[in-house]
Amino acid sequence: MLPAEIVAIGSELLTPYHTDTNSLWLTEQLNAVGIEVKLKTIVGDDEARLEEMLRDAWQRSRVIISTGGLGPTEDDITRKVFAKVLDRPLELHPEILAGIQALFEKRGLVMSPNNERQAMILSGATVLPNSKGTAPGILVSDNNRYVVMLPGPPREMKPMFTEHVLPVLAKLSQGVRICRRTLKVVGLGESAVDSLIAPIYRQYQNPTTTILFNMRAEVNIHFTATAATEFEANQLLDELTAKVSAVLGDNLFAWSDEHLEQVVGRLLLEQKATLAVAESCTGGLLAMRLTDTAGSSAYFQEGFITYTAAAKMTTLGVPVEIIAQDGVVSAAVAEAMALGARTRAGTTFGLGITGIAGPTGATAAQPVGTVFVGLATPTKTIHRALQLPGDRDRIRWLAATAALDLLRRRGLNELL
Amino acid sequence: MLPAEIVAIGSELLTPYHTDTNSLWLTEQLNAVGIEVKLKTIVGDDEARLEEMLRDAWQRSRVIISTGGLGPTEDDITRKVFAKVLDRPLELHPEILAGIQALFEKRGLVMSPNNERQAMILSGATVLPNSKGTAPGILVSDNNRYVVMLPGPPREMKPMFTEHVLPVLAKLSQGVRICRRTLKVVGLGESAVDSLIAPIYRQYQNPTTTILFNMRAEVNIHFTATAATEFEANQLLDELTAKVSAVLGDNLFAWSDEHLEQVVGRLLLEQKATLAVAESCTGGLLAMRLTDTAGSSAYFQEGFITYTAAAKMTTLGVPVEIIAQDGVVSAAVAEAMALGARTRAGTTFGLGITGIAGPTGATAAQPVGTVFVGLATPTKTIHRALQLPGDRDRIRWLAATAALDLLRRRGLNELL
Repeated sequence: MLPAEIVAIGSELLTPYHTDTNSLWLTEQLNAVGIEVKLKTIVGDDEARLEEMLRDAWQRSRVIISTGGLGPTEDDITRKVFAKVLDRPLELHPEILAGIQALFEKRGLVMSPNNERQAMILSGATVLPNSKGTAPGILVSDNNRYVVMLPGPPREMKPMFTEHVLPVLAKLSQGVRICRRTLKVVGLGESAVDSLIAPIYRQYQNPTTTILFNMRAEVNIHFTATAATEFEANQLLDELTAKVSAVLGDNLFAWSDEHLEQVVGRLLLEQKATLAVAESCTGGLLAMRLTDTAGSSAYFQEGFITYTAAAKMTTLGVPVEIIAQDGVVSAAVAEAMALGARTRAGTTFGLGITGIAGPTGATAAQPVGTVFVGLATPTKTIHRALQLPGDRDRIRWLAATAALDLLRRRGLNELL
Repeated sequence: MLPAEIVAIGSELLTPYHTDTNSLWLTEQLNAVGIEVKLKTIVGDDEARLEEMLRDAWQRSRVIISTGGLGPTEDDITRKVFAKVLDRPLELHPEILAGIQALFEKRGLVMSPNNERQAMILSGATVLPNSKGTAPGILVSDNNRYVVMLPGPPREMKPMFTEHVLPVLAKLSQGVRICRRTLKVVGLGESAVDSLIAPIYRQYQNPTTTILFNMRAEVNIHFTATAATEFEANQLLDELTAKVSAVLGDNLFAWSDEHLEQVVGRLLLEQKATLAVAESCTGGLLAMRLTDTAGSSAYFQEGFITYTAAAKMTTLGVPVEIIAQDGVVSAAVAEAMALGARTRAGTTFGLGITGIAGPTGATAAQPVGTVFVGLATPTKTIHRALQLPGDRDRIRWLAATAALDLLRRRGLNELL
């Protein structure tokens, strides 16, 4: 793969408040056309240091991509420093200046003379139009080496890169295409997934395999294939994913970027089924995840957040005897909550969650992380008992995930 | 301020999946003791490139902090490359090896010979104990220059840095202390806040002021003061925050890191008041935010997510005539939902939210972002009509924030 480096420019990126996220998106785009990011540098609005960084980069890399520092203020030094390092004077482009002036007039504003800076372009460089802002990008091609200066704001940077830079860079690495595929697993931990599939993926140098556990309590398996054509790369991916899918069985819930709640929502929609949920320790998180998706009103009808025992009885009709006998954190209450939600809302399915998210509320018999999820379907009411790890936030995510997964495995297949 | 640089080491940091977040935390810690981060470099498990980076860093910076690459595998090259660059051989520390071995035995595992690598320390360096993992950190002090090698996992890195590194570095910059303070505003946009307070903060070179709008729909005003002592820095902050607070009035809701839902929760607790919520377009987000805080069951009692008109009538008792006359997205329904939640749950306060989060559901009269929030108190039922900007996610956040803010301004002051 052709090596590249990314330089993110801006003093705000050296504060505790801002991280560079542009480079993640750029890396994905570059990888897809066979370019590998070997180094990332984050430097402030500091001419001497930026010059040193860019001189080194220019010595070592065939492709340099910078983001930021193209604004109209004195702090915006990207153009000036690259001009020095590449030894190409800045030239005023009157047609760019006219365009910026027109944009200001359209907005009913007077252009400050500062903005003239944004019309200064390195001699011999290609101007990259900015469809979302005033600062154009700049591309310098010099003896088969490339420097690309992009604006910092993602909404300006991304379309500029896709439209004007990617086609140029894609030609550099002809004969190399990188394709990725993601499988998502629920119900197994990262190391359990690895033990299951390592004997398969270790037989392949290409595609490569990365297993990641994310904040959403999903295990994501990323495959990256490199080949001469997209077709060949996808053939490699097909072969490996088929083998891995076979051993993962129905722990596998997505072959794409879909989240678990989106998969469940899609299945509900396909089966013309509806859902109501009753939550205690997750406090609305399950409903929030389900309704994050536009159009969820087609299957999600109602949610009951019964944080007290009284609410569980009054709103959901959980029998007082069950609470007295088994306690509010119990399999029987989770089932009664699921049934209550289904009955009150008149839906196909009901889900119930009760548990101890912590850090307080634990007892000797029920430590933090004790959670019961219940499911009521047209034919049965069932539950799963869980002992979940982590802090309050993690336990709440895992509990909502377990409820969604119970519906996926034991509810939605019932209607098929 | 004393300049420093941070080097994050690990090939996973050059993929589209991982970003370096350690450096944000480290920057905050370093700033507090008068050290400024001037450069960040992210490099893979690539010996030649890391060596080049570290040689340059060693030339230019008095303080270098690395994270990552201290694991037991061949990919973990931090120790080896620093040893080469600093020209200090690696020496086996038998007492570290014994400690690692003991840790493995305690977990019932056999130590792989690879782990011996983690007991190799640069000659003359200080060993930094790792209370959360096997890899110790390393501190080299050489002619008033400092190299600190920290492990990558934040739960190992952070306590090691706080306990063993910060006390050493704090001495370097004696005579400079940096203190920060954050004010949080709701109900005004970033530019409205800036217009209000710029005439004040522009009069100060120290503290400096940064205004940021975050994902949580809060405007955060960060002040940073530099002085010889913490006392003096705080005096500077006191003076500026007093002046800024005066013009912001009750748009200001926090003088700390507290979120709006935490402030509201604290006020409910102080006033021994309780809350129930009724949500439509926010789909559980308001309840989820309120119950994110441990101990919220002391004031949060019940949530009703009435996604359909039928649920609004059946569960909350919203009169059918109101829905027929004003429509489900209306001020009258928001008030009726708030009142219904308060009545059904028997709480001090009720909040109601109805609106169009989009992208679908808009009409000619009601575009995406039309939201009504209602509040029912012991003495009144009121509402606010909003036209919120952004996508579905942003509109949901802003709507939940507006409901919390209505309770803060118009409900909680009623009980005082």
